[in-house]
Amino acid sequence: MLAVVATDKQEKLEELCALVEVDYTELQPVTNPFDALRGDAPLIHEDGNVMSRANLVRGNADQAIKNSRYVVTRKYKTSWQEHGFMEPECCVAMPEGDDGLLIYTTSQSVYDVQRECAKMLQLPEDKVHCHATLVGGGFGGKEDMSVQQYAALMAWVIKKPVKVKYTRQESLNYHVKRHPMEMEFTTACDENGILTGMKGIIIADTGAYASLGGPVLHRACTHAAGPYNYQNIDIFGMSVYTNNVVSGAFRGFGVTQSCFATEMNINLLAEMAGIDPWEFRRRNAIQPGQVLPNGQTADPNANMAACLDAVKDVFYANPYAGIACGFKNSGTGMGKKDIGRVLLSVEQGKIHIRTSASCMGQGIGQMALTEICHVTNLDPALFVFEAADTVRTPDSGTSTASRQTVMTGEAARRAGEKLKCALDGGKALAELEGREFFGEYSALTDPLGAVKENPVSHVSYSYGAQVIVLNEEGKITKAVSAFDVGTPVNIESVEGQIEGGMVMGIGYGVTEKFECVDGYPKSKFGTIGFLRATEAPELEVILCRPKDGDELPYSLGAKGCGELCMIPTAPACAHAYYRLDGKFRQSLPLEDTPYRKNKP
Amino acid sequence: MLAVVATDKQEKLEELCALVEVDYTELQPVTNPFDALRGDAPLIHEDGNVMSRANLVRGNADQAIKNSRYVVTRKYKTSWQEHGFMEPECCVAMPEGDDGLLIYTTSQSVYDVQRECAKMLQLPEDKVHCHATLVGGGFGGKEDMSVQQYAALMAWVIKKPVKVKYTRQESLNYHVKRHPMEMEFTTACDENGILTGMKGIIIADTGAYASLGGPVLHRACTHAAGPYNYQNIDIFGMSVYTNNVVSGAFRGFGVTQSCFATEMNINLLAEMAGIDPWEFRRRNAIQPGQVLPNGQTADPNANMAACLDAVKDVFYANPYAGIACGFKNSGTGMGKKDIGRVLLSVEQGKIHIRTSASCMGQGIGQMALTEICHVTNLDPALFVFEAADTVRTPDSGTSTASRQTVMTGEAARRAGEKLKCALDGGKALAELEGREFFGEYSALTDPLGAVKENPVSHVSYSYGAQVIVLNEEGKITKAVSAFDVGTPVNIESVEGQIEGGMVMGIGYGVTEKFECVDGYPKSKFGTIGFLRATEAPELEVILCRPKDGDELPYSLGAKGCGELCMIPTAPACAHAYYRLDGKFRQSLPLEDTPYRKNKP
Repeated sequence: MLAVVATDKQEKLEELCALVEVDYTELQPVTNPFDALRGDAPLIHEDGNVMSRANLVRGNADQAIKNSRYVVTRKYKTSWQEHGFMEPECCVAMPEGDDGLLIYTTSQSVYDVQRECAKMLQLPEDKVHCHATLVGGGFGGKEDMSVQQYAALMAWVIKKPVKVKYTRQESLNYHVKRHPMEMEFTTACDENGILTGMKGIIIADTGAYASLGGPVLHRACTHAAGPYNYQNIDIFGMSVYTNNVVSGAFRGFGVTQSCFATEMNINLLAEMAGIDPWEFRRRNAIQPGQVLPNGQTADPNANMAACLDAVKDVFYANPYAGIACGFKNSGTGMGKKDIGRVLLSVEQGKIHIRTSASCMGQGIGQMALTEICHVTNLDPALFVFEAADTVRTPDSGTSTASRQTVMTGEAARRAGEKLKCALDGGKALAELEGREFFGEYSALTDPLGAVKENPVSHVSYSYGAQVIVLNEEGKITKAVSAFDVGTPVNIESVEGQIEGGMVMGIGYGVTEKFECVDGYPKSKFGTIGFLRATEAPELEVILCRPKDGDELPYSLGAKGCGELCMIPTAPACAHAYYRLDGKFRQSLPLEDTPYRKNKP
Repeated sequence: MLAVVATDKQEKLEELCALVEVDYTELQPVTNPFDALRGDAPLIHEDGNVMSRANLVRGNADQAIKNSRYVVTRKYKTSWQEHGFMEPECCVAMPEGDDGLLIYTTSQSVYDVQRECAKMLQLPEDKVHCHATLVGGGFGGKEDMSVQQYAALMAWVIKKPVKVKYTRQESLNYHVKRHPMEMEFTTACDENGILTGMKGIIIADTGAYASLGGPVLHRACTHAAGPYNYQNIDIFGMSVYTNNVVSGAFRGFGVTQSCFATEMNINLLAEMAGIDPWEFRRRNAIQPGQVLPNGQTADPNANMAACLDAVKDVFYANPYAGIACGFKNSGTGMGKKDIGRVLLSVEQGKIHIRTSASCMGQGIGQMALTEICHVTNLDPALFVFEAADTVRTPDSGTSTASRQTVMTGEAARRAGEKLKCALDGGKALAELEGREFFGEYSALTDPLGAVKENPVSHVSYSYGAQVIVLNEEGKITKAVSAFDVGTPVNIESVEGQIEGGMVMGIGYGVTEKFECVDGYPKSKFGTIGFLRATEAPELEVILCRPKDGDELPYSLGAKGCGELCMIPTAPACAHAYYRLDGKFRQSLPLEDTPYRKNKP
């Protein structure tokens, strides 16, 4: 932060800002992680240019690859992606009481805003009261502080309400992007197309400052071998500082990138083994009780094979159909604290659902209400869903990692069960006036590198297969998702998420490019290449629910779907174009298609 | 291999070679490992551009660094080095018997030549008879095949004797070089200057083909934390293919490179902690019974502290003296087969010492003779040391990894003990005519990543400190080595090795640069910058022997000294220049000194 300028008249702002003189020397920027790794690179930060590392080793990849009938090694490259949420960042901060601050924020967690602003102002956390307004879309782009700290600081200093709002261009320039990753993956299979081992290197451009580069890299690595049944893997990743735009959280969280490399290698292996790409995936699809490449045993509800079966016909019916599989954790996991909390309070005849879980449009309120009504059988009209608020609502963690339906959903269900108990004696709701019912769910997982035969990295995984259909001109005419997201708590909402995810995935794969030149973001909202509504293909969603009794024992059996829905889309697009024109594309966004013709 | 041309008249060779037409397309070369890592780099080999990886983790480096009072992160870069052995590569091959081949070779192992030529010609190994001639210097540069395969192939095809000899320029162009490495190292200590943790990334340029890039990288990593007593380390290394000259084995074997980074960081930490650089190293010097950063417990003979004590006066007496410490394994170790073998045979009244251990000038014969005479008390004049030969001499492994004095020395001692037993009954040597006495020593070690509290990576380590003294003009006037190499079996030979190593180390540090431009070696013997005899400074060698009874129980207590002797030299030079002019140099060779003025 260099300077914050505030005025009571917006039109005077630019004039005032012009009074701030900043004396600086522009240095030669480091614009890619490879230059940052050089022995003669400048140190971008005092503690080095390597921000984070991850190494996932199971079995003996080198040996397995050496002994395999078919082996493929390819390099891949993915680029930045902009979240493109509907509402740019905005925050209003004002004094509260004698020595406190009230912050209206639109972030993915009110408690994160509270903690970080309190730390900045050196205040006790309870002196910083954060209240969530409607978020207007996040997709990971509103996990970090953006405008909140400026509003808080200025309000604290001048003791008046202060509003800080990014223009769209400021929003594009300053919030984090999806990490560009460059990868070298080797994948091997036997003569029957059974996967035997893989190894890979992932180098991520985490930009100029630390955001969530560490966890994103971890997830890219732990999911890099795909939703298949094999064990010999050796994946090393590095997240490296550059002078580029900062990379951070974005729906799919690293897995979007490594999935592209893995699925493309699998297409080549299938070709070498003379097995069609659907069949190849079906033979290897993880089954319940088998062990995922990251060491975790697949739950009885793991329904990857059913997802593939559900897209078989559409894949075979279309000569230019591309296919890809994916999986994604629900919950932050990896041994980190991962807790959902819901408080139900009966106030003036209404039951208030209080949780800090941030709703960015995915329908947290509807989901929590469904869980509670399912348990209590009460009329939904009796409930009021409150906005997240650090005074009123218990900390339910950040809306990230496809976690809220599992974590807060289960907490809501548990709170609902307590409410039901209280009502079971035949009491009327009015008799419970003033009572509170608290539900909490804490997911226990193992850290990366835990010395266990089968570490539980995440409380659950969702699985899915997608098919992208091209016409002869190379236009995407249809996108089909068959997904195992456990029990869909709200089918319309789940379908909406998946449809949105597919469109975002097509954008990531074929239409969007965020430009950063010499360290400066250079894209405008209109030039990034977001898919317009009129360009969206026909979308189909098939939900492959687990068998009765196999469901995850939390949140009515729901697993997350917020991120998975866009993970296999880009490789499915790349596969479709490969089938159309024979060109094996190794970078995203795909070039030389009707959507991006020979753009460099 | 494209084509081999032979003629009976050397003067016709060029004319004949000109008849070979080679049709090729010159592609854009990949000239550094960072470009090779990019996601859009061409695959230099089908199995990828990452040739080898290593990851050494002990304790929790991140945590230790975070909790440390002083932390320093710096980047370092080292360049190629040419061995500059006296005799370029030469080989003569000819038919032997009806279906065999006799090869006269000057390599570091006759058995390696046998195995590789037999594999190439698809012959049983015993049909390829290899005989060593005087080697004329190797330093690691004669471990790989260079000319042998050409001579063998042509002799096999034309059934006539064939000689292949490199000119000096061919030798420079085609044999392996020392790996350029680029590093980012973080080192931390507490308020008393006690080392607490380190982490590092090492990226090595292994060139266009596989040589010993894997083991070199391993050794760079396992020695990267230096001969000090601390445990929280996390070192990751990658050896990456490029289109440059091939890198491989070279005296110091990766440790020369990582030692530079480690020792330079230590100079900065000492400065931050306000402790002089000698004292800082003395406080941290590994002591017997303490655990080395790589997990191995230091032997009772580990004499690092005594080495530092021995150079204390010369360091303090000179304002522009630089200091560095180093350690180096003896023996290949790391769980690999590591065996020394000696056969003594009594023939016509003489005792023949038969071992395949290759002598490149380091005095294997003298060493073996000393071991045997020490045990048997026989007159050295009774012995004949035979040249290495796959028919006559048992396989004693390659002359590499400072291993022959320990491995073959112990095998010689054991063979000598058997001979002594046979003589002990009062027999005359004549009575033993025709008898053979076999000695074998097999070193047992643990592989990298062994799940053990204290893995034994190598059978022993040598330790040492060096001081480089500059005059006010920046000329190196004196180099002092205080080394713990165990028992010096032959003091003159050990001192000679160490003196030669210091001169080679000064070359590596301040005078030599091997140029490789666009993938083509561009240096000539006269332009590399080898230190001339007249430029060598005063050299002093101090041997810090272990206390009686503390010796390594092999080979009379000898440890290797062939490699250690040049490992600390370059950082000691860099430290001396830092004290002279205040410039902290982070790349080798050092620039802006009287030896290399502003050369880029």
